[in-house]
Formats: sequence, structure tokens, C-alpha cells
Amino acid sequence: MHDMVWNSFAFYGGVVVAKTILMSPITAFQRIRTKTFANAEDAAGFSTTPQTHDAVERVRRAHQNDLENIIPFFCLGLLYCHTDPSLEMAKWHFRIFAASRIWHTIAYLSSSSARGPLGFLPGLIVNISMAYQVIIHFKDAL
Amino acid sequence: MHDMVWNSFAFYGGVVVAKTILMSPITAFQRIRTKTFANAEDAAGFSTTPQTHDAVERVRRAHQNDLENIIPFFCLGLLYCHTDPSLEMAKWHFRIFAASRIWHTIAYLSSSSARGPLGFLPGLIVNISMAYQVIIHFKDAL
Amino acid sequence: MHDMVWNSFAFYGGVVVAKTILMSPITAFQRIRTKTFANAEDAAGFSTTPQTHDAVERVRRAHQNDLENIIPFFCLGLLYCHTDPSLEMAKWHFRIFAASRIWHTIAYLSSSSARGPLGFLPGLIVNISMAYQVIIHFKDAL
Repeated sequence: MHDMVWNSFAFYGGVVVAKTILMSPITAFQRIRTKTFANAEDAAGFSTTPQTHDAVERVRRAHQNDLENIIPFFCLGLLYCHTDPSLEMAKWHFRIFAASRIWHTIAYLSSSSARGPLGFLPGLIVNISMAYQVIIHFKDAL
Repeated sequence: MHDMVWNSFAFYGGVVVAKTILMSPITAFQRIRTKTFANAEDAAGFSTTPQTHDAVERVRRAHQNDLENIIPFFCLGLLYCHTDPSLEMAKWHFRIFAASRIWHTIAYLSSSSARGPLGFLPGLIVNISMAYQVIIHFKDAL
Repeated sequence: MHDMVWNSFAFYGGVVVAKTILMSPITAFQRIRTKTFANAEDAAGFSTTPQTHDAVERVRRAHQNDLENIIPFFCLGLLYCHTDPSLEMAKWHFRIFAASRIWHTIAYLSSSSARGPLGFLPGLIVNISMAYQVIIHFKDAL
């Protein structure tokens, strides 16, 4: 049973961290498209100077939100696998998190105002649920 | 013995990552209180336009400092559990880190200048200590 | 075999996360050298007010790029160790990543335009390679 929870975590953890690293090429694409660079040595190659552009900043905000939510999911999920959760319950934690974060990115990059309730909030609730179970399970190791 | 070190890591790791994710609701609270949003689609709901406010930026700086210190603690702590540390020594690493990071957040959000010496520095020293022990322990796996 | 892959991951993972946390003291050094602080309570100690300086922002951009790449490397590398890779193949993933990220920091802090092709790109390719292998290996745990 424990191995199956771990395998499920490895799959969904791999998916959401892969999603996170794909934000870098999207940022690079927007930087080149809008000729917007943060460093003088990068801007020089496009005969421009460092500046900002909201199309770039938007991807960077989405990326930052991933770091703030997906990395804690990975940490908490890894510990949560060691709290003997049922396989079904664990899988639903991971599935809801992965689906909500993929939606979060789509909604953010398309400027949808449905980003929060369907994208950010379910992921935060999954993280809080796992954090609670981890802290309760390991509280005697204080 | 190893299991007891791991259990202690799981408890304190869960606590500090839980602390980190709680910065998101605090940011949201400050954004709504000051009607300060980064995205036009969010600002529109409050009949305003994207802007910045130091009350929001302060929470975001504290959150960023958590990402820069608590996530590395989780990574290094996980590896450190595999270096056969004594239970007492390991627990003190985890306890000092958790206490200093909780203090760091309180001091940052209340603009206390005691944030650095008691909040940031002890956490950094714990991370450097664990990093050193991990690198020495696994140096033959180069 | 698995233990040797893990030991190698622990060594290189420890090295790159240690490199990441060293960005904090470098930022602090640049802040003090240029008397550039983000918080009024910090600036007051140097009789100045909050401001920005490119020497500080450059270290912070390098640090942020570490968080965006090294932390995902740690997550994906940990899962990758459980996909039964060959020891040689795993070691080359870890070595190329560590070497490219150390070069990335040196190139970034010295404003070299060779930062991207030799620093950023090899690290991203290693992360994508590990993410692909993890997702394929654990795809039945959907």
C-alpha cells in the first residue's frame, strides 16, 4: 500500500514540477517576442536596454506562484506519504492539486479572473490538508 | 535511531513549510485591505488598476525569504537525515531552524530590526551546518 | 546499485543547494557595499531610505534563477533515483547539472553573455530529461 501511495505521488509530483520548469521557456519566448530583458548583456543582443513588459511580468508572476505552491506541495506530499494515508484519499489530494495548478497556469496566462477560485484555492486547501495531517502524525517527534 | 531522526525532520519540516504556505493568505488579506493588485483582471473587481503598496510588498519579501531559506532547509534536512546524525544533534538543528524562521516572520511583518540577527542568521547557520555534513558524508559518491 | 545512485544524488544535490543558500550572504554584501536596502528599518541603520541598485538586483536575479531551476532539480532528481537509472547515466545527469549551475552563477555575477547557452540551457535539459523519465516510469500510478 505504501509503495502505491509513493508511486502516485511520484507521478503527480513529476507532472507539476515539470509544469513549473516549462515556465522558463515561456518567459524566454515572451522576452524575445517583446524584446524585453532584465540584463544589459541580454538586451544588447537585441539592440535595446533593460526594461519591463507586462506580457513578461505576467509569466513571471505565474511562475512565482508555482514556486510558492508547487514546491511546498512536493515537500508536504513527500512527508504525507509517510503518514499511512489510504490510497484513494492520497490520490485525490494529488489529482485535485495537479488539475487545479494546470488550470491556474492556463487561467493566469489568458488573464482569466477564474484563476483564483478554481486554480489557486483548491491547491492551497490540498496543501493545508496535507500539512495538518503531517503535523498531527509526527507531533510526538517534537 | 534513523527513524526517530526522520520523524523529527518530518514534524519540523511540516511546520516550517506550513508556515510558508500561510504567507499566501496573508498577502491576499493585505491586497484586499489596501486594494492593491498586480493583475488588471483582479484590480477590476475592486474598481482599481494594478499598483503596489508597501504593506503588500513587505509580506511578499518575507514570503520570498522563506522560499530562499525554508525550501533549502527541507532539501538539506532530508539529505542530512541520511548522514547518521545523533538524534539530539539533529533535533537541535531542526528546532533552532523552526524557531528562528517563525521569529523571522513575526519580526518582518512587525518591521522589527531584530529580524536579522535572531531570525535570518540562525536559520542560515543551520542550513550551512547541514550542507557541510551532507557534502562531507557523501563526498565519495562524486 | 540504487544506493549508489542515491548517494550520488545526495552529494550533487547537497552541492547545488549549498550554492543556492550562498546567494544570501552575497546579496547582503552587495546591499551593505552599496547601502541599498528594501526595508526602512534596515536602511535606517545606514542613514538612508529604501532604494534599488543593479548590483543588488543582479544577485537577486541569479538567486531567483537558482530557485526556479535548482529546487526543481532536487525534486525531480529525488524521484528519478526511484526509476532504476544506470549509475553512470544518473551521475552524468547530476554532474552536468551541477557544473552548468555553478557556471551560471559565475557568468551571471560577472555579466557574461555566455550565461545562457552554457549555464542555463544544460541545466534545463537535465531537468526535462529527468521529468520525462519520472513521468513515463510512474505513469501507471495515475
